[in-house]
Amino acid sequence: MTISIIGASGYSGAELIRILLRHPGVKIDNVFANSAAGKRVDEVYPALRHRTDLVFDEYALEKVRSSDIIFIALPSGEAMKIVPELIDAKLRVIDLGGDFRLQDPALYQHYYKHVHTAAQYLPGAVYGLPEWNRTAIASAQLVANPGCYVTSALLPLLPLVKEGVVDPRGIVISSLSGISGAGRQSSIDYSFTETNETVRAYKAGVHQHTPEIETVLRTFAGADATVAFVPHLVPITRGIHSSMYGRLAKPATASAIGDIYESCYHDAPFVRVDGARYPEIKHVQDTNYCDIGFTLHNATDQVMIFCVIDNLIKGAAGQAVQNMNIMCGFTETEGLA
Amino acid sequence: MTISIIGASGYSGAELIRILLRHPGVKIDNVFANSAAGKRVDEVYPALRHRTDLVFDEYALEKVRSSDIIFIALPSGEAMKIVPELIDAKLRVIDLGGDFRLQDPALYQHYYKHVHTAAQYLPGAVYGLPEWNRTAIASAQLVANPGCYVTSALLPLLPLVKEGVVDPRGIVISSLSGISGAGRQSSIDYSFTETNETVRAYKAGVHQHTPEIETVLRTFAGADATVAFVPHLVPITRGIHSSMYGRLAKPATASAIGDIYESCYHDAPFVRVDGARYPEIKHVQDTNYCDIGFTLHNATDQVMIFCVIDNLIKGAAGQAVQNMNIMCGFTETEGLA
Amino acid sequence: MTISIIGASGYSGAELIRILLRHPGVKIDNVFANSAAGKRVDEVYPALRHRTDLVFDEYALEKVRSSDIIFIALPSGEAMKIVPELIDAKLRVIDLGGDFRLQDPALYQHYYKHVHTAAQYLPGAVYGLPEWNRTAIASAQLVANPGCYVTSALLPLLPLVKEGVVDPRGIVISSLSGISGAGRQSSIDYSFTETNETVRAYKAGVHQHTPEIETVLRTFAGADATVAFVPHLVPITRGIHSSMYGRLAKPATASAIGDIYESCYHDAPFVRVDGARYPEIKHVQDTNYCDIGFTLHNATDQVMIFCVIDNLIKGAAGQAVQNMNIMCGFTETEGLA
Amino acid sequence: MTISIIGASGYSGAELIRILLRHPGVKIDNVFANSAAGKRVDEVYPALRHRTDLVFDEYALEKVRSSDIIFIALPSGEAMKIVPELIDAKLRVIDLGGDFRLQDPALYQHYYKHVHTAAQYLPGAVYGLPEWNRTAIASAQLVANPGCYVTSALLPLLPLVKEGVVDPRGIVISSLSGISGAGRQSSIDYSFTETNETVRAYKAGVHQHTPEIETVLRTFAGADATVAFVPHLVPITRGIHSSMYGRLAKPATASAIGDIYESCYHDAPFVRVDGARYPEIKHVQDTNYCDIGFTLHNATDQVMIFCVIDNLIKGAAGQAVQNMNIMCGFTETEGLA
Repeated sequence: MTISIIGASGYSGAELIRILLRHPGVKIDNVFANSAAGKRVDEVYPALRHRTDLVFDEYALEKVRSSDIIFIALPSGEAMKIVPELIDAKLRVIDLGGDFRLQDPALYQHYYKHVHTAAQYLPGAVYGLPEWNRTAIASAQLVANPGCYVTSALLPLLPLVKEGVVDPRGIVISSLSGISGAGRQSSIDYSFTETNETVRAYKAGVHQHTPEIETVLRTFAGADATVAFVPHLVPITRGIHSSMYGRLAKPATASAIGDIYESCYHDAPFVRVDGARYPEIKHVQDTNYCDIGFTLHNATDQVMIFCVIDNLIKGAAGQAVQNMNIMCGFTETEGLA
Repeated sequence: MTISIIGASGYSGAELIRILLRHPGVKIDNVFANSAAGKRVDEVYPALRHRTDLVFDEYALEKVRSSDIIFIALPSGEAMKIVPELIDAKLRVIDLGGDFRLQDPALYQHYYKHVHTAAQYLPGAVYGLPEWNRTAIASAQLVANPGCYVTSALLPLLPLVKEGVVDPRGIVISSLSGISGAGRQSSIDYSFTETNETVRAYKAGVHQHTPEIETVLRTFAGADATVAFVPHLVPITRGIHSSMYGRLAKPATASAIGDIYESCYHDAPFVRVDGARYPEIKHVQDTNYCDIGFTLHNATDQVMIFCVIDNLIKGAAGQAVQNMNIMCGFTETEGLA
Repeated sequence: MTISIIGASGYSGAELIRILLRHPGVKIDNVFANSAAGKRVDEVYPALRHRTDLVFDEYALEKVRSSDIIFIALPSGEAMKIVPELIDAKLRVIDLGGDFRLQDPALYQHYYKHVHTAAQYLPGAVYGLPEWNRTAIASAQLVANPGCYVTSALLPLLPLVKEGVVDPRGIVISSLSGISGAGRQSSIDYSFTETNETVRAYKAGVHQHTPEIETVLRTFAGADATVAFVPHLVPITRGIHSSMYGRLAKPATASAIGDIYESCYHDAPFVRVDGARYPEIKHVQDTNYCDIGFTLHNATDQVMIFCVIDNLIKGAAGQAVQNMNIMCGFTETEGLA
Repeated sequence: MTISIIGASGYSGAELIRILLRHPGVKIDNVFANSAAGKRVDEVYPALRHRTDLVFDEYALEKVRSSDIIFIALPSGEAMKIVPELIDAKLRVIDLGGDFRLQDPALYQHYYKHVHTAAQYLPGAVYGLPEWNRTAIASAQLVANPGCYVTSALLPLLPLVKEGVVDPRGIVISSLSGISGAGRQSSIDYSFTETNETVRAYKAGVHQHTPEIETVLRTFAGADATVAFVPHLVPITRGIHSSMYGRLAKPATASAIGDIYESCYHDAPFVRVDGARYPEIKHVQDTNYCDIGFTLHNATDQVMIFCVIDNLIKGAAGQAVQNMNIMCGFTETEGLA
């Protein structure tokens, strides 16, 4: 099986290359990155020396026609320029960006600040959260890989909202992300000196992952959710830690919550739930795992839920490969364990 | 004026020494630290070489009888062994620990896990949050310096709860602390390798600062508050970032909230409020400032409030010196600007 | 094939477990750690949840009799208590510690500060630097895995000293190590607050890796070397960066030096040399690679050489598995690529 | 006394503002920064809120005519466009950049890669290393503030080279700098993700501070020095750690070396020498101190010297203020202790 990666020179793209080089069932055909075209991959990412001779190329449709899966790791607004011709050419696509996650183009425009120019392809997009959408993903032509913060919020929230334990209105999601989440960009804001030894919130309540979380809670848990989502930058390279605070919709015990998670995720290879342990980012770094912990807070009738993922793996490239495995009939964990 | 510091070899104690060496109105008489007795201060803290010839000593009551102010920077449970004899000797005391912050000894025992052995001295203790208790502090004999997390939560919450803008029930406080908050201790849990490149929550809902926040909200804002407080460790040395999520008790505008803060803190030299800016830990590091930002979130009828302090300064030694300035008639900012 | 690990609960031991769980030709039989006996491995290292059900056990000779390879990851002074009975029982051993690296027990005692109690087993120990001792390792019963700093110094120095390009006397080796090099220990010295945002040298000229570097230069490069070796701690978790400064023993060009490295390492799968690039720790983190760069400095007639490795992998567990692969007839890179 | 700062929006400029706001004898008249003109200082540096109402302005000669001292904190190549008119206007200038440190314009051009366009002003420039040039600085019109790496190398090397203890040829200087040394710039190379958890050398043997170190060793120690200088980036915000390795030119003891330093620096308020201690960056952070340690290495006949400074203070703004204090008759430590 052969694959291509469009937008391969960013952090998610590099992570895809790294993971797929180890995947026994896959050969990387093409890596496209217009800004780096002509450079060897290991020139831009010296960590990959001795592991690949791939060279970044400029994208063109004819170069990918024979690829079984095409990954897109472009900034929002770019994927929608390419996806239509790929879909029309009967190719299968996994988009790691935000362009095909929201079904409502108006909502997209409101949060992403530009018009959606490929809205007719939205109905065909399948939301790529494997633990909740495995069957649809298996036969999908276009998979919209979830946002990194979104993954860390949905995996712990969906079971409790679906079972009516957590009130879907006004859930607080206080997330912390490593700086690699900002992508590979030159900016004083993400320079070491400005981000080390500090913490800052940003886009409080207005981050584009907000409507994605709310929409998916509606789709998969059947609840009209509203969330108060605040992302923060913390001085680590990789990883997301989300702390969630949800009001109980009905009385619950820790044991009952544990049972809900167990029943929901007992066959999910990458979700590890433990109500007695606070999950730590370091336990999931460089892996596709999602670790979840929780505690009941009786004084305020809330459940406090903690979730960690590696933003570049379960939050991006790893989850994309997990989706590919499902789409192509590989074992779900192939190349990821 | 002369002062003594009991428990001077920990991080808060060292910070007190550093600040007071620069204070023009004060001379440090004694620094007590049984574990380091006999060692020069600059042997334990080489940063202070050329700045002091002080030597750590073993504490004894007779050595402090002539001190105008006595700072105590001991672990919880230790101060209450010493405070009684100091108070009985008519000395003025500022305790940086938790022993005299809660008026209810049963509550203290529940959260601190040991009996309070000096409960009869609790009624005489004055809560040392200068911005809210300046007058009582001025004439106090025993000041209980607030907890670090508590300071970062109370300064932004008190005005809004007092004015009835924020519902005092179920306020979410998601706090992040640098590792120095754990004190100067040898423990694998706080080793670099275990704390770097990771984040973890701890004591969710059961941290001993929880009852302190609730009690002070009752005392100074007149509200029966309950808070869902979760502290987290982040890999920075100093600083606290608290994100708070409070339901609106009545309709509010950002401008009205700004006015409440302005009216409350316009003469507070160390509180800087700016609704248009996300406060960052690095802006307050090594200072006694408390920076506050906020935003209204209409979708969930909440106000999101962000607050940063340096845990060792406004959260400990700096606030203690601010209290000393008030008690002794110095300008409130003396030695702290 | 089955293996056992003695001293499995430290960082090198955990890394061995992590690597060997992925190794297709190996099954881990026993993991011994007296301090953690009875605990599940994934309780001490939650990152390994879902990956193993191993439980730490107390070591006893009879438990390892059927193991094909026994790894020892104990502190110096401990391995020599166990190695004799293992060797006498005809078992094959890879010791990650320092006990069997120096052939001279007096030199050992001088640097390690305790007597060598198994000196009669020293002549049977084979130095486990695969790139220089592959044949002897293949048939060895006891392999002494090199020190972390030593590996980072020897791989770049050996070829140039052997070819007479670098004067073996007075070579300066200025090395920087991440804090995990200090092991998993509770100590204020390695706490986050004491090691973050700082750098310090330690054991300048007296570190126990000094005689190991000098001895191996004599053994494999035939030179009477003296080195001025200074290790430093830098605030990263993993990795070593060594900068070496050697006087030229004869005129040399960058191209000639490149040729020496090429000729020496063209078939070494884990050594990557590039005279035009400064190696960076991040390029080898979590890998078994050793990256080398160099530049000639005509003004002082020196060659400046830079080398990076992951201290826990090529500097410890990875190199040990590389040795195991050689000893057991696996491909040298098995489980490591 | 009033001062102006040209190039005030970079890190050194901001540090100058911060220090001078606390200096009792000085008022800041103007802060110039073309890129930030019109913005309040505390908008760019929110840490300075409540401390200043200064607004960045565009530089013009007439605006600084009444300033007693003019600091220039511009990139190399920019100061030399402005210094001539300032000198001609009889103003006193302290240049923090590299334009007036090397007396030889050819050497300047070789290392700085552009022509020196104000070479006729070089003879008038006084090298601003207070511990070695106090008298000349006192009456100087133009002071060239030393480079950050240079300060960390010269203060420990000058006494030993001058006394003939260290052979001036081939001294190895292996320096580590925090990322703030790269200035306030948007660049992927200095982004958090690229610089965290790694170390890299750069400009080995060709860094522009090389000729400055060699020249000053000649001027103040009378020795024809050649140095092998390699700077490295380490993931800390502030601070430089330099490890130096010099061959002994004659037999020496640690005690004799200690005496040389004592005799040289006993009245230098900011130099702290201790042969028994490894200096650490954290001990000098946010101060103007320079800490020096050393050890003799008999096996290679070398002295190993370790030196730490804060690159933005003793390596830039603090040393500039120290020079100003000397030029203007203040106590040397005013505003810096």
